[in-house]
Parts: sequence; structure tokens; C-alpha cells
Amino acid sequence: MAASMYPDYPPALTPEQQEHLVTSLKDWSIAHGLAVRPSPAFATDHTGVLATTAPVTLFPSPFPRRCFEEALAIQTAYNELYSAIARDEPWLKGIVEELVEVDDFIAKLWDIHLAVKKEGYAQDLSLGLFRSDYMIHFDPAAPDSKPEIKQVEFNTIASSFGGLSARVSALHKYLYGGPAHCLPSGINQNSFPPNSSLSSLAAGLAAAATAYGSPKSGSSRLAVLFLVQDVERNVFDQRLLEYELESKHGVCVYRLPFPRILTDTTLDPQTRALLYHPPQASSITVEITAVYFRAGYAPSEYTHPDAWLARHHLERSAAIKCPSVLTHLAGSKKIQQVLATPNSLHISSFLRDHAAAQRVQNTFTNIYPLDDSEAGLKAQELALDPESAKRYVLKPQREGGGNNTYRTAIPPFLRDKVPREKWKGYILMELINPPPLSNSILRNGKIETGGIICELGVFGVCLWRNPTGEDRRGEVLKNSEAGYLLRTKGRESEEGGVAAGFGSMDSVVLVDV
Amino acid sequence: MAASMYPDYPPALTPEQQEHLVTSLKDWSIAHGLAVRPSPAFATDHTGVLATTAPVTLFPSPFPRRCFEEALAIQTAYNELYSAIARDEPWLKGIVEELVEVDDFIAKLWDIHLAVKKEGYAQDLSLGLFRSDYMIHFDPAAPDSKPEIKQVEFNTIASSFGGLSARVSALHKYLYGGPAHCLPSGINQNSFPPNSSLSSLAAGLAAAATAYGSPKSGSSRLAVLFLVQDVERNVFDQRLLEYELESKHGVCVYRLPFPRILTDTTLDPQTRALLYHPPQASSITVEITAVYFRAGYAPSEYTHPDAWLARHHLERSAAIKCPSVLTHLAGSKKIQQVLATPNSLHISSFLRDHAAAQRVQNTFTNIYPLDDSEAGLKAQELALDPESAKRYVLKPQREGGGNNTYRTAIPPFLRDKVPREKWKGYILMELINPPPLSNSILRNGKIETGGIICELGVFGVCLWRNPTGEDRRGEVLKNSEAGYLLRTKGRESEEGGVAAGFGSMDSVVLVDV
Repeated sequence: MAASMYPDYPPALTPEQQEHLVTSLKDWSIAHGLAVRPSPAFATDHTGVLATTAPVTLFPSPFPRRCFEEALAIQTAYNELYSAIARDEPWLKGIVEELVEVDDFIAKLWDIHLAVKKEGYAQDLSLGLFRSDYMIHFDPAAPDSKPEIKQVEFNTIASSFGGLSARVSALHKYLYGGPAHCLPSGINQNSFPPNSSLSSLAAGLAAAATAYGSPKSGSSRLAVLFLVQDVERNVFDQRLLEYELESKHGVCVYRLPFPRILTDTTLDPQTRALLYHPPQASSITVEITAVYFRAGYAPSEYTHPDAWLARHHLERSAAIKCPSVLTHLAGSKKIQQVLATPNSLHISSFLRDHAAAQRVQNTFTNIYPLDDSEAGLKAQELALDPESAKRYVLKPQREGGGNNTYRTAIPPFLRDKVPREKWKGYILMELINPPPLSNSILRNGKIETGGIICELGVFGVCLWRNPTGEDRRGEVLKNSEAGYLLRTKGRESEEGGVAAGFGSMDSVVLVDV
Repeated sequence: MAASMYPDYPPALTPEQQEHLVTSLKDWSIAHGLAVRPSPAFATDHTGVLATTAPVTLFPSPFPRRCFEEALAIQTAYNELYSAIARDEPWLKGIVEELVEVDDFIAKLWDIHLAVKKEGYAQDLSLGLFRSDYMIHFDPAAPDSKPEIKQVEFNTIASSFGGLSARVSALHKYLYGGPAHCLPSGINQNSFPPNSSLSSLAAGLAAAATAYGSPKSGSSRLAVLFLVQDVERNVFDQRLLEYELESKHGVCVYRLPFPRILTDTTLDPQTRALLYHPPQASSITVEITAVYFRAGYAPSEYTHPDAWLARHHLERSAAIKCPSVLTHLAGSKKIQQVLATPNSLHISSFLRDHAAAQRVQNTFTNIYPLDDSEAGLKAQELALDPESAKRYVLKPQREGGGNNTYRTAIPPFLRDKVPREKWKGYILMELINPPPLSNSILRNGKIETGGIICELGVFGVCLWRNPTGEDRRGEVLKNSEAGYLLRTKGRESEEGGVAAGFGSMDSVVLVDV
């Protein structure tokens, strides 16, 4: 598609044009908080006061309008789906128990759920700030076929970049949305869709804070707690949400580093209200309405034994968790694989709207377990044949575990590096073939131009009440699409993620193909 | 005043409080564009992509409410006064001609006016974005006396920090305006006055763009031109104004480095419309409605011979200048001295409202020429006596010229370093005695705490029509107070200015004294 439709995209620039665009971008980004703390490799700063433009593309990337609109349109169905999974503890139990052996992280999370379940949950409400990530799939063998969105993963915890992403959309509109832009003709105001990520995610957190109701403890102060990592270069992405919550919704926010949970919070003995004791204001106690996890998602964060105690402590509390442990588990790779295993019927059992279920199903790429099930045996065949392996990526099943293996590297990897009894620790996923595109990326002050791959993330907000007693299904209280993120990386790199230093932020310019 | 009223200001902080405040400040500032490009001494950055928090106080500084309100209230009278001076060419001529011998810069500016006057001005409208700077004067010999504002200088060109200043006010309100602030009791929401500097200055430029009217040349594109220095660390202060103009007023802005005036602009032969040819868009021509000088104010910028040709070129043009050459001249130190010479009657001739004239007069500290006039002979006596010299500062009369000499250093300096025939190149100004205050300043990531001196700048917007033909007085079309700036420096330092690396930005917390 784009190769033929946009052979000259992005446009060639004169040195004066490039200088003007890059200067405009550098200044606008800092003036609008589109920033990160610099990596130590780029700038030495012992005082933590320097900032730099977040890695960003010089141009918005062309994206098929139909695909973009479909991705946004089905987000509420995805919210519904993952909320339903998180509410279906018996179903989750069946999946998780298969994993307990191979994935210690999943096992520990499940243990926390079991412990809190035994004691009784103190909070029925759950908040999900989700992000469903897609790439455009384009079948090179069928050049007349339409491009489609295919899901890469679904995030139920710490879905990041919602703060900065709205800014990137505004940046590209600022640079190119005016009358003097230098993009190909046919691109106009309508080509830059609005991006509500910042305001919508903040509205989601505000809805949770409101739904929490009045204080349960003696404290008269209520606040939302952002659980963060100790060192965070992507701090402005989080801060923008915080400022939006405070200025637009009057919701007070505190930031708590993950290692300080047990130091700075306690539970009210009667109500298990989560009480935060700010180290900077020892005389006050704040009751936490909602805990927003921007940390605690990766196994590597749980090396200290107290980390699991801390997670348990939060789960026990009466604060609304974003996400709860069950919601966190719902986002594991294994769930994605189970949903996307060919001929699975799970989707239609969770989503009663058949049309919506079908549209969600259409975004799946085939994912196979590598176990001894029927689908697993089929997968082993596909993975070991060098010809069919070309269309697949092999991923470790466990969360945060190791690197992916691609295409023809799969058969020798499985045969020579992985004992057969460990194969079930992997899944085989059909590769998505994104159309060839080019763009320029500004990172650490340097411009790099070349072939790129784009990944679209659609944010969703879902607030629900979990099943209690007689109520077997719970209830969805708020469900909305919440803007988008476009992340772009060099085509040769196979790993993504701006924070990891590989990718960059981008926005879409919609094209009709 | 403050020494007794605020013996414990700023409050002592626990390490946790300081850590929390400084982290909050560092993050908020970058997220809101309260930033500068780092100095090369602080951070090496060959790519120009790094930014850092603008030097800023950790706390707002106490400021007497009555003084603050008076300074803002008389700004429209000051706008009127300086606009009237700029419109009174015969009066200006009398002053300037005295200076031509000692000040080459003033002489060159005057020559430009004469040349354009001869040809005929192509634009009757003039815009002033002014800033009147004050310090609090407190007579230590009369401890019962009320603190008063005394003028330090009046700026008619490149009055900077209006963009960042609004952000500093918002920062301090964010840090301390809430219920959990740690400032002394008695400080509340009313203690943080609004600061409209950013929106008001942008509204001034927008008013000029509107008053310009429809295009005079064949071009259909109109824009405001920001004339800037080639290397500008304080770029975000300017950019914030630009973004405000574009987003709130739909006014397009271009930035032109001073050395590129003659390269990138031409005059329409018929109308002398100023035509800008953006190097990054060679096919378009933009007609400039207003030129906003953020460069071209200092003699050191005119070392290249083309610089004066360029200034003449702009002055000839039909664009509204902010400021015109006559307005620039009206802001020279000599004018301030003439107005503030004891027993001068100038103010009342320019300001017909006697009450307003008196209030303006009250802000003057005595300034004497060091010439052979009656006031000059009196001044020589005061300057040479070590006892009376203690109350004075000696300043070179010429713009941008050299350092000031303070107090007891004046008599030996005059006697031993300056030949008597050069004395008239200096003015003698009564020192202002600001009350002792303390604060902490964050600069380059480090916190320094100690005695400080504050300088309040009040912005003003004035748009007027110059006299033409029969009309001898012209007409003021817009006149408004436009927010404020508080700049704070260490008490031991005698020179100020954030951009120079000595001072920092601040905001007021109003106190009743």
C-alpha cells in the first residue's frame, strides 16, 4: 500500500526546510512538555534537572483511515472483553493453573489473589486503563488485498505514553496542519484525527476517584496514588496525567515509588482503607481512592522479598486498583494466546454482541501454544519447518522473559537450544507484515531517516464492579475509547519501545487506501 | 518590614520536604515550558536539544500588597507617558542632541529617525510592549515609614520574560496555593495575584496585527515577525508568546535572526510593505504586520556595518514596529534621568491627569546629571563627599556601557579614573534600599539559599497613532497593564538579569504591611 501510494513520503527537504522543521520541533516539544529526562549516555546530569525532546518522528506516518477507525471503534468491545475476563475468576483459574509451573511471576500474582479472596476483597470496583497494540498487516502474496489491523498485544497494566501521545499529535498538527505545510497534497486538516489520550485517561482515573465515594477512614483528604519506579526517565508522560487530574478534575495526586509502599502506606484496621503518609508532610494522612500502577508490572521489579508483600498489601486495601491482580493476569501473554488460538470459542462466550466479537476476532493473528494439544502439535510442525517458520515469531510464554526468535532462526533454536520438555514455555505467533514506510526520527538531537515500522496503540478506559455474592457477572460502569499512541521504530530493529531507547513516538496522518 | 514580619521566611524544610518540593518544581517546570537552553558551562549539547528549568526561586517572595497594587495601577499612566514622549519628536530632539557627542548608539538611532522622517514614515502606528522595573524602598533611618516602590528603569524595547513569568506565578501557586502548603499561616489563595503577562503581551501584538489592516502588497499572507538574536538560550520565553498568538489569536509568527534582516526581507516598492521570504519556503512571500524586537536593543549587536542598514530598512517599512526608533530612544537612560531630576516639570506636561502624574512622580528616585547645570553641580558635590556618596550609584549615561560604581567607591573613581570633561557621561542615582529578605534559588540543578533582592517589573501594552500633518498629538488606541515579572538575585550581587546567569525568576506572595 504505502510503498506505491507514498513513494515520496516523507518529502525530501532542503537544508533550510529541515533546519526550520527540526528547530520548530525542538522548541515546541519542550514548551509543551513533550520531553523525557536524558539517558546518562546522552547527557551527564547529576542534578536531574535536564530534559530533552522525547524521541519523535519528524513527520506523522501515513496510516490507512479505515484501519485507524476500526481500531478505535472496537476498543470498547476490547474493554468489555478484558473486563469480563478479569471478572471470570473460574475461567482465569483454568488458564493460570497451566502456567504456574513455568511462570513463577504468574504464580505469585495468583497466590496474592487467592490470599485476598480468602480474606475477602475490600473493594468491588476495578479500573482498567488499557492499551491494545496493533500493526498493519499487508499480505505481500496478495497485493490487491486491503491492509488490516492485527493485534500485537493487549496491555492491562502501566499502559504508558497516553500523556505524551496527545502532545505528539498536537506537535505534528502544529508543524503540518497549517496552510504552509510541506506534505503531499491530499493531506489536510481531516488527515489529523484528534487524540484524546491525555484527557480521556485522566477522566478514567477521575471516574474511579469519584466512584470510590466518601472517606472510609477518619482522614478528610482523598487522593489518587501513582505507583512509580524509583528512577523514571519517562516522568513527564506521568506528570501530564497528574496535572490534568488536578487542574481539570480537582483530584489530588501523590507519587509513590514501588519500594516505598510498605514504608509510606498503612491500612485502616477497620475498613482496610489505604492510608498514605507523605514523608514531606508528616502531620497529614491521605486516604487513597485509586492506585494507578506505573510500576510493578515486570518480574524484574520483584527481586526484593518485600515487593510481593507490598503488592499483597495494596491488593488487600480498599483502594480501587488500576489494575487489580486479576486484571493484571488477564493481560498475560497466555490469555492472548488462548483467545487467538485458531478455532477457539472464548471470544463469543465473553462478548454477547456477535458482530463485535467477530470484529475483535478479525484483529487476531494466529497464535499457537507449543504444547501437546492439537493446536500445539500443529504449531510444532510449523515451527520446525524452515519454510513455514518464515511466517512466525517464537516468544517465551512467561512475562518479561527473554528475547523473541524470528523466522528461520526458529527451527535451529528449538532443536538445539531448548530441551523438548521446555517447549510449552513458548508460543508461536504468526508474523504481521507491515507495509514499507519511511520516516525520520529525532533522537538525542540526531536525525535518522529510513525504513520504519509503526505500531498503533488504542487506549481504553473501563471501570467495573466485580461479582460479589449472588451477582455472578458484575457490572461495567464506564467504558470508553481513550485516544491513541503511534510508536515507530527502525525497520531493521525487531524490538520496540521508546523508553528502551529503540523506538520513537509518532502520530497518524490518515490516508484512504 | 520583611525582616521583622518574616523572620522565618522562607520556612525551614526537612530533607524530605525539600526533596519533594524540588522534584515537584523540576518536573512541573519542564512540563509547562518554564525552561531555558542550558548554558555551555552547565551542559555540553552540540545538538541544541537539551533544556533545563529556568533559574527560579523555590518560594515566592513576600511583597507588600499596597506596593504591588500601586505598581500595577500606574502602568497605564506610564504607558501614556512614554507613548507621549515617543510622539513628541521636538522634545526628544532636545534631549538626544545633548547626547550625540557622548553616545554613538543614540546618535545612530537618531540618524535613522531623521532619514526616515525626511523620506516620510510609511506607518503611523506604533506598538510598545513596555516594562517598568521597581524595587521596594525602605528607609532604614525611619523604621516606621511605609515601604514604597521606586523605579529602577523603564524598558521600551525587548522587555523580556513575559512568557515565562506567567508560568512562574502558576508554578508557585501550584506548589503553595493548595491546602497542604507549607508557607506561614496568613498566606492563602488571595496572596497569589493572577499574572496575565503571557496573554496580555500576546493580545498587544495581536492588536497591532489587526490594526495593520489588510495587505498592502500583493501577498495574501500576513504575519508578525519576531526579530531575535542568533543564539538565544531564553527561547521558550519568546516561543510561549508565539504559540499564544497562533493558538488564541490565529496570528501567524515567523522568527528572523537580526543578522538575516537584509537577506530575508524586502520592501514592496510602492507601499514599503515589509515582505518576508522564509528560507524554508522559497515559493511564498509573507507581508509583515508588526516587527517585535527581541534583538537589536544593545550596541554590541551593531558591530557589523549592515546592522544599521538593516535597522533603517525596518524603520522605513510599513510594518508596525515594536518599538519604533523614537520609542526605543524614549527608553534611554537619559530620558529617565531627565524625568527624575529633582524639580523637573516634564511629567506634568506629558500627563494631563495631575493625580496620575503625581503617582508616577512618587516612584522616581532622585537622578542627577553630572554636568554643569545647577542639578549637575549639586550632584558633583554629593558624589565627591564619601559620606553622601554612600546613598548613590554612579552609572554611565551611554546605553549598554560598562559597569556601575557604588557608594564609597564613587569619589575615588571620579577623581582618579575619569577625566573631568567626561563626567557628563555619567548620572548619579539615589540608591534604593530594599528590605532584607531570604529565599532559595534553583539554578543549574543546585539550590542556593540566602539574602536576596527582588525587582518587580510591570508590563504594559500601548498601541498608538503618531502625529501626522495637522495632528500634533497623535492618538492612543490601546493602553493596558499587562501582568508582572519578579526577578530575584542574591543580595551580594549588584548586577541582575536571569539571562546573564546572575538572577532568577520569582513571583510575589502578597503581604499586608
